[in-house]
Amino acid sequence: MSAASTAAPRVAFQGERGAFSEEAAVKLLGASVTLVPRPTFESLFAATAEGAADLALAPVENTLAGSVHRVYDLLLDSPLHVAAEVVIPIRHLLIGCPGSTLESLRTVESHPVALAQCERFFASRPDIRRLASEDTAGSVAAVLRSRDPTRAAIAGRRAAEIYGGVVLREGLEDRAENYTRFLLLAPEPCADAGADKLSLVLKLAHRPGALHLALEPFARRGIDLLKIESRPVCGRPWEYHFYLDLRTAPGDPEGEAALAELRERAAGVRILGHYPSAGAEARR
Amino acid sequence: MSAASTAAPRVAFQGERGAFSEEAAVKLLGASVTLVPRPTFESLFAATAEGAADLALAPVENTLAGSVHRVYDLLLDSPLHVAAEVVIPIRHLLIGCPGSTLESLRTVESHPVALAQCERFFASRPDIRRLASEDTAGSVAAVLRSRDPTRAAIAGRRAAEIYGGVVLREGLEDRAENYTRFLLLAPEPCADAGADKLSLVLKLAHRPGALHLALEPFARRGIDLLKIESRPVCGRPWEYHFYLDLRTAPGDPEGEAALAELRERAAGVRILGHYPSAGAEARR
Repeated sequence: MSAASTAAPRVAFQGERGAFSEEAAVKLLGASVTLVPRPTFESLFAATAEGAADLALAPVENTLAGSVHRVYDLLLDSPLHVAAEVVIPIRHLLIGCPGSTLESLRTVESHPVALAQCERFFASRPDIRRLASEDTAGSVAAVLRSRDPTRAAIAGRRAAEIYGGVVLREGLEDRAENYTRFLLLAPEPCADAGADKLSLVLKLAHRPGALHLALEPFARRGIDLLKIESRPVCGRPWEYHFYLDLRTAPGDPEGEAALAELRERAAGVRILGHYPSAGAEARR
Repeated sequence: MSAASTAAPRVAFQGERGAFSEEAAVKLLGASVTLVPRPTFESLFAATAEGAADLALAPVENTLAGSVHRVYDLLLDSPLHVAAEVVIPIRHLLIGCPGSTLESLRTVESHPVALAQCERFFASRPDIRRLASEDTAGSVAAVLRSRDPTRAAIAGRRAAEIYGGVVLREGLEDRAENYTRFLLLAPEPCADAGADKLSLVLKLAHRPGALHLALEPFARRGIDLLKIESRPVCGRPWEYHFYLDLRTAPGDPEGEAALAELRERAAGVRILGHYPSAGAEARR
């Protein structure tokens, strides 16, 4: 990464070097991007305002584990705009120190979600103890520092390469259909001519039919609702924010008309971004 | 609890004795209920089939943290029926060993969600290290076993009482509007005459307007949609199950007609239960 020119954008991601987020950043922005690791989601969202990065990349959804709620909550209060999305397949590797073997292992550490996605492996090796850690790549770093052949970590290929780990087994995940979707966040709205996807947050008055009424302007026009996610409104028990992903291009008259109707019907609408959707290969 | 008669139902809950789930079980079923602690959500859902309990009580939603997704996923595959719901306020106490004081503390342990709900306290005491643990009540048990005056735990009043902990501070939570909602699960459907709430899971064909169309039979009849939650369909990226809570009594002609229309429109509908909703005091 030291080869990156000063013109390459600096992108913040959550986790340590080698995280799946880093892999997603390189897939979206190319190998010349400058990678800015941040320890927490809060510090990730603060990175651009602090001048530490030009962009931030945040995971929003895994196809097995579901939405990343902390990120949805931070999006609500953030002035950042969604500028793009990227989807990567999650492939878990078992990574040990040089000299370690499958037989020498006693413990395997990783993020709890990664551990939970490799149940079959742990069932086949009941002698191995699983240890929860803060993140996947950080576990690889810790294992390699220890030089302990009884320890291994579960993480992606990039982490193995960066820390010089030995890949003891590939394809550890129970299910192959395992993808994570990330949003690229920028201080300014996206002006990409290829934008075809709209993300917004909705606040509704609590009355019967409110959500149905809010979706109607899009349904009537055949505009596809790709995802809906609800999160509790902080301090207002049993009220929710709704996050909608819709298939519509900016400036499209149908989409604009639906949005105008939505604004009349909802207690609040905030546009998170209008951006190009990830390639069809990832959306099947 | 040893005073419970053999006729009192045995209710399984996740966590150790003194957990918030235990508090909810006693609120819903009375002090004579026999409490069956289970270590994980998986073992909670298996408790009735194994003959270890007559009922199971599972948390589904916290008004600050949001839905408990593991429970939603387990509900989908479980043959159990929702028989009732109960809502309890979450009040966090700082609990130490006899002889400990606020000044003697060096570490505070609890479930990560509880720790995150007490940010103000930790900001006021930057010298105290926070330690994540498996559950709130279990942390109190561990602290009391250690007899270490530098350790405290965050949990509810019931945990302090059961383990003989000293309450060093009350009202540790940042926000007072903190409630958790639990579902009581039973092997047979609920036959309660006071049932006024319906929970179901929906599978939709993926086409524009599918969700809007599914909600329409309820919206047209003024039937209140209380909550909607989406979860990924395992092995089918970007497809979702929708969990709906609706305000409708069993046998109500309007509700039955809406449900019949829904079955025609959806790729799949599964009724989770028809049950009496929690008291108005909890729903504001």
